[in-house]
Amino acid sequence: MSDALAMLNSSRGRIGYAPDDLAAAIALTQDCAQTCTACADACLSEPTVDQLLECITLDLDCADICTATARVLSRQTRYRGSVTEAQLEACRAACAACAATCERHAGMHDHCRICAETCRQCEQACATLLSEG
Amino acid sequence: MSDALAMLNSSRGRIGYAPDDLAAAIALTQDCAQTCTACADACLSEPTVDQLLECITLDLDCADICTATARVLSRQTRYRGSVTEAQLEACRAACAACAATCERHAGMHDHCRICAETCRQCEQACATLLSEG
Amino acid sequence: MSDALAMLNSSRGRIGYAPDDLAAAIALTQDCAQTCTACADACLSEPTVDQLLECITLDLDCADICTATARVLSRQTRYRGSVTEAQLEACRAACAACAATCERHAGMHDHCRICAETCRQCEQACATLLSEG
Amino acid sequence: MSDALAMLNSSRGRIGYAPDDLAAAIALTQDCAQTCTACADACLSEPTVDQLLECITLDLDCADICTATARVLSRQTRYRGSVTEAQLEACRAACAACAATCERHAGMHDHCRICAETCRQCEQACATLLSEG
Repeated sequence: MSDALAMLNSSRGRIGYAPDDLAAAIALTQDCAQTCTACADACLSEPTVDQLLECITLDLDCADICTATARVLSRQTRYRGSVTEAQLEACRAACAACAATCERHAGMHDHCRICAETCRQCEQACATLLSEG
Repeated sequence: MSDALAMLNSSRGRIGYAPDDLAAAIALTQDCAQTCTACADACLSEPTVDQLLECITLDLDCADICTATARVLSRQTRYRGSVTEAQLEACRAACAACAATCERHAGMHDHCRICAETCRQCEQACATLLSEG
Repeated sequence: MSDALAMLNSSRGRIGYAPDDLAAAIALTQDCAQTCTACADACLSEPTVDQLLECITLDLDCADICTATARVLSRQTRYRGSVTEAQLEACRAACAACAATCERHAGMHDHCRICAETCRQCEQACATLLSEG
Repeated sequence: MSDALAMLNSSRGRIGYAPDDLAAAIALTQDCAQTCTACADACLSEPTVDQLLECITLDLDCADICTATARVLSRQTRYRGSVTEAQLEACRAACAACAATCERHAGMHDHCRICAETCRQCEQACATLLSEG
């Protein structure tokens, strides 16, 4: 059992989503924040950095939005649907935009391929929670 | 001239909003992140902390969302409307929810009064940018 | 192989640490940020919240410091030892302080027990990197 | 009076520093986080981006470390010196490193000049608090 799920189970708070789906979304928003941060850094090491500027910028935006989303999702004690849902929509939009850009370089750069895959998984995890809201 | 406006003027990036409105929104999202962090901390020092739990939780959510929004707004080089607008919507929702809760304690706690005022200003700054999008 | 390790392997950047140790530290700083955020939230749901205020505050500090550390560690392209090491020292101090406080409530609250364990692992991962610096 | 100072004055928490110095440090760590985020973005728009990669990386590290420091400084209710001081040391190191790099481009890029100045002010504000600890 993941730490995120164990923490949800140890709380007296009423969870607004299916616990497995929520734990998966918490883990994926965190993974995606890390992957996007690392992808931006790896892009800065490429000789073709001047062709990767949009990718770097979207990586940085997506990392910040995923970090905030992971934190909001980790607070379920006094669940406020309007805030969580709006942040999930922003996270879905950021992951979709970042994935679409990284996918264009996935054949050339492994870091973009891995980042695009994690973004798509995170986009789907946000969509799953939004469908339960 | 604020640092945020000076930084916008020093960039070759094309700004997606009126520069004064964007600089104001960057400053307010940052102020609001600080005020919400400090309000959560001050609530934890109140003898009536058990009546302020919703306020603390919304303060923490709002601080994280404002921090992410300030960063996204500070990146205008490769402006991506869908991401920025979704994050502005999330920020507006978080500020509105946090303000409404803090306003209920504004008569008793100065930190809630100041925090509610900053949240309302930040909510308005997000709305202004959304109207320009 | 974890995403963090795969991302390190896909980068042209020169890594300042043993890759497995660095990937482990990145994963643990992220886990610890989540566990601390969730522990603070779970503490706010306890009937004895007024006895957990120090725990909540240290959880919030540790979460913020771990989030920053995970990001700094994820950027290895232009490794700057003085910055990374100072942030690792701060992370080690925050994890040690948070663990010591959560351990006092570990027998009563599962969230504090899990959080203390993750903090101790993260403290050790920071110490390992510092010993390689 | 700044919001940060008003928030400190409204809290029952015992402040570990001279209130004016603490409020100044909170404001400067926030300003520096914004300036560094915007400088990294502006660097990505320069035709000479491939000569600014170290600047971009240090900007991103400094932004993350300043954001964490601003939050830790905003929590004074249960002040824990060891954590705050270690984070202040990390912030001082990050600001010094980022300033030194930006200063090398200050003659060519206004964003680097402004960023270097803010980093130096933030470095000094951290040093002031450390001298009071």
